[in-house]
Amino acid sequence: MNSIKIIITGGTFDKEYNELTGGLYFKDTHLFEMLRLGRSRLDLDIKPLMMIDSLQMDTEHRYKIIENCKNTNAKKIVITHGTDTMVETAALLAKENIDKTIILTGAMIPYQFGSSDGLFNLGSSLAFAQTLPIGVYISMNGKFFNWDNVRKNTSIGEFECLH
Amino acid sequence: MNSIKIIITGGTFDKEYNELTGGLYFKDTHLFEMLRLGRSRLDLDIKPLMMIDSLQMDTEHRYKIIENCKNTNAKKIVITHGTDTMVETAALLAKENIDKTIILTGAMIPYQFGSSDGLFNLGSSLAFAQTLPIGVYISMNGKFFNWDNVRKNTSIGEFECLH
Amino acid sequence: MNSIKIIITGGTFDKEYNELTGGLYFKDTHLFEMLRLGRSRLDLDIKPLMMIDSLQMDTEHRYKIIENCKNTNAKKIVITHGTDTMVETAALLAKENIDKTIILTGAMIPYQFGSSDGLFNLGSSLAFAQTLPIGVYISMNGKFFNWDNVRKNTSIGEFECLH
Amino acid sequence: MNSIKIIITGGTFDKEYNELTGGLYFKDTHLFEMLRLGRSRLDLDIKPLMMIDSLQMDTEHRYKIIENCKNTNAKKIVITHGTDTMVETAALLAKENIDKTIILTGAMIPYQFGSSDGLFNLGSSLAFAQTLPIGVYISMNGKFFNWDNVRKNTSIGEFECLH
Repeated sequence: MNSIKIIITGGTFDKEYNELTGGLYFKDTHLFEMLRLGRSRLDLDIKPLMMIDSLQMDTEHRYKIIENCKNTNAKKIVITHGTDTMVETAALLAKENIDKTIILTGAMIPYQFGSSDGLFNLGSSLAFAQTLPIGVYISMNGKFFNWDNVRKNTSIGEFECLH
Repeated sequence: MNSIKIIITGGTFDKEYNELTGGLYFKDTHLFEMLRLGRSRLDLDIKPLMMIDSLQMDTEHRYKIIENCKNTNAKKIVITHGTDTMVETAALLAKENIDKTIILTGAMIPYQFGSSDGLFNLGSSLAFAQTLPIGVYISMNGKFFNWDNVRKNTSIGEFECLH
Repeated sequence: MNSIKIIITGGTFDKEYNELTGGLYFKDTHLFEMLRLGRSRLDLDIKPLMMIDSLQMDTEHRYKIIENCKNTNAKKIVITHGTDTMVETAALLAKENIDKTIILTGAMIPYQFGSSDGLFNLGSSLAFAQTLPIGVYISMNGKFFNWDNVRKNTSIGEFECLH
Repeated sequence: MNSIKIIITGGTFDKEYNELTGGLYFKDTHLFEMLRLGRSRLDLDIKPLMMIDSLQMDTEHRYKIIENCKNTNAKKIVITHGTDTMVETAALLAKENIDKTIILTGAMIPYQFGSSDGLFNLGSSLAFAQTLPIGVYISMNGKFFNWDNVRKNTSIGEFECLH
């Protein structure tokens, strides 16, 4: 099968500004709008699974993601995810040894805010999903990282290799 | 060598609106701004080579691009290019049998206009440059095409396989 | 009556980029979206009258605008108009001595392009419509001009007083 | 004197998203960029006075604003201000009986976020500053309100008359 599954889990990627409270929150995913903007003509199967800040994720959330990765017929998966615990979810996924190419990506700035890396990361991760061999990867800052060789450098807001 | 060379040649990717004449024209490339927005941390060597609508390109322009592909030390190259004759440049490049991964990309809507596919295509093409084997490719609409199996469908503004 | 009538006639204000042809054209007005963005709570009566580049306007078009200004119950009117012959329409309107406050405004950059003055001009002109006495005015560049003391300086793309 | 003084005090108008913390904060004002976008050609005297959420304002802050309103030679003043306590500052200003036209404005969505009412409100308030008689006013939602006949309806995020 050639299609790519996109599993939406929220994260900064999809946050919005609540003008009544002055805080950030989730409404609907912007993924469809972003794919339309990018004029993507890929064969995609899109699953909005949850809308959560990854700092709020617990094991149950992550296993729900894992379950969805296993159950889909698609051999290539992109997961939009909060950047804070993206590496954690990637590690749990890798343990399952799923015979698929799984790419986790996210954004440092909400898509809705303009000046967002979301659209760029979406293009990167969909490309990596098509070309990388079976395994679990993080796609951020234009690069791809193996799940076991990456960390989020929170002081500069970037992803980097461990070694 | 690990860095990616980006060769800028113009196209709709970089067009701007001239408020005095009401037409479109080229000023400076937006590529740097787009890489900053995408928070790219790739090792890049960026060469603004020309700023031209690809319908205005002649053989001399295309051979200048070919020459720059040959001369760079980089093994991976992304060329931003007008979409109208992108396939033509790709074919000329392929004839040269350059031992590099060369990706041509562009945009249907100028980056400056909002609602542009430019940032998405930039993310895609940089990812494909890192993972595709030696060869010449087009990257548009989220996909990659071999240079000899693609055409621009001008009535719907999309790239598609020949067979 | 307290409401303001907005008469839409097109101009750069509402132009869009046609990705298939590379040119500019009219589709639907963006005025409703702009009023939503600006969170306008004014009592407005909006009339999409025509969608035309003001260089294409002839006397018939201008008299249609005049007729609509006369016929509406509203005492305050904003007309979105191409900037190239905005002063011409203003002069014809003034001859009619309509007992209303009529403000003509437009944009140098299409609203759809980002970096547009459209939203700013819309805010200005609606404010001037509420506060200026009966007469015909141009509202551009943050200012208001009496219909008989203004011209478009086409070399710098700005409106200025005659004396 | 014909120039308009703009006093910048912060508020949602100028907030930015901090990608490292996920919260909102102040960096530099966006006012200059907004005036450039709007292609304003008004004679303006711009004073960045403070960058503060108006919920954090105390009497000292407000009296600093009042002092600056008194001291300027300009007869027309626009103050960018957080919407939460804008009415409070307006009331204190009105008590001072300053012989000037003073307009307070702000935004419900940070300018930087796209989908902001900031640019529209800036156009409105600068227009009202030119045409309203001496007094203190709030300019939001396309309207103007006398300082003593307005409140912020926090449940719907709009400004409305008291009676």
